[in-house]
Amino acid sequence: MSEITTLQPSLLWKWFDQICAIPHPSHYEDTLANFIVNWAKEKHFFVERDEVGNVLIRKPATKGMENHTPVVLQAHLDMVPQANEGNPHDFTKDPIQPYIDGEWVKARGTTLGSDNGIGLASTLAVLESNDLAHPPLEVLLTMTEETGMDGAKGLRHNWLQSEILINTDTEEIGEIYIGCAGGINANFEIPVQYETNTFEHSAQITLKGLRGGHSGGDIHTGRANAIKVLARVLAKLSQNQPHFALSEIRGGSIRNAIPREAAAVLAFNGDVKTIESAVENLAVVLKEELAIAEPNFTLFVESAEKAPTVFTAQSTQTVINALNVLPNGVIRNSDVVKNVVESSLSVGVLKTEGNVVKSTILVRSLIESGKYYVTEMLSSLAILANAKVEFSAPYPGWQPVNDSTILDVTRKHYAEVLGEQPVVKVIHAGLECGLLKEHYPNIEMISVGPTIRNAHSPDEKVEIATVQTYWDLLTRVLADIPAK
Amino acid sequence: MSEITTLQPSLLWKWFDQICAIPHPSHYEDTLANFIVNWAKEKHFFVERDEVGNVLIRKPATKGMENHTPVVLQAHLDMVPQANEGNPHDFTKDPIQPYIDGEWVKARGTTLGSDNGIGLASTLAVLESNDLAHPPLEVLLTMTEETGMDGAKGLRHNWLQSEILINTDTEEIGEIYIGCAGGINANFEIPVQYETNTFEHSAQITLKGLRGGHSGGDIHTGRANAIKVLARVLAKLSQNQPHFALSEIRGGSIRNAIPREAAAVLAFNGDVKTIESAVENLAVVLKEELAIAEPNFTLFVESAEKAPTVFTAQSTQTVINALNVLPNGVIRNSDVVKNVVESSLSVGVLKTEGNVVKSTILVRSLIESGKYYVTEMLSSLAILANAKVEFSAPYPGWQPVNDSTILDVTRKHYAEVLGEQPVVKVIHAGLECGLLKEHYPNIEMISVGPTIRNAHSPDEKVEIATVQTYWDLLTRVLADIPAK
Ligand SMILES: [Zn+2]
Ligand SMILES: [Zn+2]
Repeated sequence: MSEITTLQPSLLWKWFDQICAIPHPSHYEDTLANFIVNWAKEKHFFVERDEVGNVLIRKPATKGMENHTPVVLQAHLDMVPQANEGNPHDFTKDPIQPYIDGEWVKARGTTLGSDNGIGLASTLAVLESNDLAHPPLEVLLTMTEETGMDGAKGLRHNWLQSEILINTDTEEIGEIYIGCAGGINANFEIPVQYETNTFEHSAQITLKGLRGGHSGGDIHTGRANAIKVLARVLAKLSQNQPHFALSEIRGGSIRNAIPREAAAVLAFNGDVKTIESAVENLAVVLKEELAIAEPNFTLFVESAEKAPTVFTAQSTQTVINALNVLPNGVIRNSDVVKNVVESSLSVGVLKTEGNVVKSTILVRSLIESGKYYVTEMLSSLAILANAKVEFSAPYPGWQPVNDSTILDVTRKHYAEVLGEQPVVKVIHAGLECGLLKEHYPNIEMISVGPTIRNAHSPDEKVEIATVQTYWDLLTRVLADIPAK
Repeated sequence: MSEITTLQPSLLWKWFDQICAIPHPSHYEDTLANFIVNWAKEKHFFVERDEVGNVLIRKPATKGMENHTPVVLQAHLDMVPQANEGNPHDFTKDPIQPYIDGEWVKARGTTLGSDNGIGLASTLAVLESNDLAHPPLEVLLTMTEETGMDGAKGLRHNWLQSEILINTDTEEIGEIYIGCAGGINANFEIPVQYETNTFEHSAQITLKGLRGGHSGGDIHTGRANAIKVLARVLAKLSQNQPHFALSEIRGGSIRNAIPREAAAVLAFNGDVKTIESAVENLAVVLKEELAIAEPNFTLFVESAEKAPTVFTAQSTQTVINALNVLPNGVIRNSDVVKNVVESSLSVGVLKTEGNVVKSTILVRSLIESGKYYVTEMLSSLAILANAKVEFSAPYPGWQPVNDSTILDVTRKHYAEVLGEQPVVKVIHAGLECGLLKEHYPNIEMISVGPTIRNAHSPDEKVEIATVQTYWDLLTRVLADIPAK
């Protein structure tokens, strides 16, 4: 037991502490799932896992609420495993170590898993508590949300009996989500041919210090994408400089984050100073252009070890030009929902792997046709660049519904616990709700949660006070679900 | 004399009526310029034309204001010549026929030329009036603003003596412009090869009913670009349909307007119904996607006359894919000026001309490096598509300065004549101020004007009441220019 078990509401924090103790990165959720199933059995709740591993637990209504609309509370079982550089943490074996840091709970050197562990803990706390009023209750815990939403995708049909679903995966207190973007992955592969490196010099151009951020939620902020800025630098160099050849290009680390770093290794003849001063000049221009959005932008060139082979001139050109024209960022804003991006894409990772330069892209849209418009642009570019693009793991958006019972009830109680009106939002990021709605089209849905910052990074933290507010909201809403 | 001479302020409207009577489309401004020069000579003002035809007139300060900061009032001499379809109006010979339509002044069947004719009339009215107080005054009238800003570009150095410039080319009462985007033209030409048309059927796909608008000022609105939507339709068809060949593709009519219509003629084998139903299905999807932004969107296919030759399969593919991936719209929003686009491009015109498909693009940016980033993306695409891109007529943006004497004075008097604070703005559209500032870097500048709607179209109109407000503002500001 850690110090967080001293926090309020104690039942919720006790559960979260328990969750931290059982490793549960994506694809390794079974230990945690089985722990919960066994606990539910001991409590004599109805409990079942479906074909893909999702857990469903049922608890009867409290006295007098038997005829009220049944509600399912939903959270995902998995967490994103990210450790600080040099931390030997094994997410499949080692427990997360949560601790209190002022107003926040954090983990030592790793992601905390408050996304979605606080939500998960809240559903179990509701099951365990004896002093809450609620209608017929279900708790649905889904598998592998963070790497493909496998649980939501494979959810058993005709399993849920509820007419209202409360998703607990929102990361901002005071906000009620009623819609979100869908997505699809794109892998864009540019074939490259090599030749013996007969150039005199080798250098690496490195771009770093960018802010990064969520590939959906931050896509409209004007933050720079390291891969795209590097492509621009190389395109500019290739238009003005003596001939050079690439031997490697890389950037970013995960598909769903805006890349913060990128680098290219190149070989060239002539004066080293020429390329150095060209890069310096570009650094000055870009630093000024990005002064506000990217205050720590850094671009520099340094000498590199000579690679035995380099891309041919043709391959060098194709890679640079395809990456420079590769669409990225906001494609269209929504006309329906003000100030929300409708369609976007984020080039997340770039790697040189043998005979291909491969970029890993996440396409998002509030509407299906917007998502496929972006994929068609990528297909057109692939044809022009003799590249190959493959699409995978599509998931639907969650179409907003502005009037529903659960929205009315949640709005009312949120205003009371917050002391101000909540913000009802559609977000340009993925939640499981779109997929859940495909299986259960008539269910009413909202998503709420406490304030979490830096999710998916070792800086993840959850704001303690907002966990209490979230809990107050959740328990009030459950007690006020109207009769059918 | 027309009925508009009955309007107030009468001296301004009398001058505007006179301007309408003398044809003055871009490149044909000499008759009007000479008329003004002769009038100024009769009035014994200093008057001169420079090497590119700009007119400069000087009028001494009124009594007691001799030591106040000298001011130049500036307007452009030319107007955009656009007539309704079927109207045989000859802009080089026929006068514009202005008339009063309720709260507005319009022209019969053509552009009105209130852009920048009202501003021009106001400068001449200030010169002619005997009852206004003003510092040493200059009036600068520039050539050919609407098709390349030739006058502002070629402006004679060390000619102006003023330290403040008031540009009169703003089209919204209550707004003071203090900065604007620069621009550069791009002509993107995709070579095409032809072969004999051996296909059975011919059809034309037509897209129309879009709202269009200003290629800069409306670029963030989500309005659809007919050329880009047509490219998307063709890319989708080419991915799913039996082989077809293009014989023509076209869209838009002028570089600086968002295109409202586009069409493609294609030849194909097999069942006509297949292509008809594919286009119909796409029309349904696009109509829904654009329901709010483009309520009158129409897409249909009809049979067409058989063309003797068609593009080869390779050329058909390259044209479709290059147009589908051609960047268009907002590239980045400004971090410095909130809610203003930093960089954009608008594909304005598309034509099939012999062995090339040519698209005419206008690139804009508040910053020079943003403008050149867009041109580099176009260059990268050109290399991938074996196309050719040429850039011309670059002009610089006007960098905003937030504190200046003229801004303070204008702000104060605007608040008094409007009854509310004016809005100080930077716009994503072109004004001559950036070029003027290159020649006279130390001059303070603002831009103001009455409310004009639908400039550059036969629906152009100017709001009568705002002309009086603009005049009141201008005359108060001139009277209140401080001592040096
Ligand atoms: Zn989550
Ligand atoms: Zn104008």
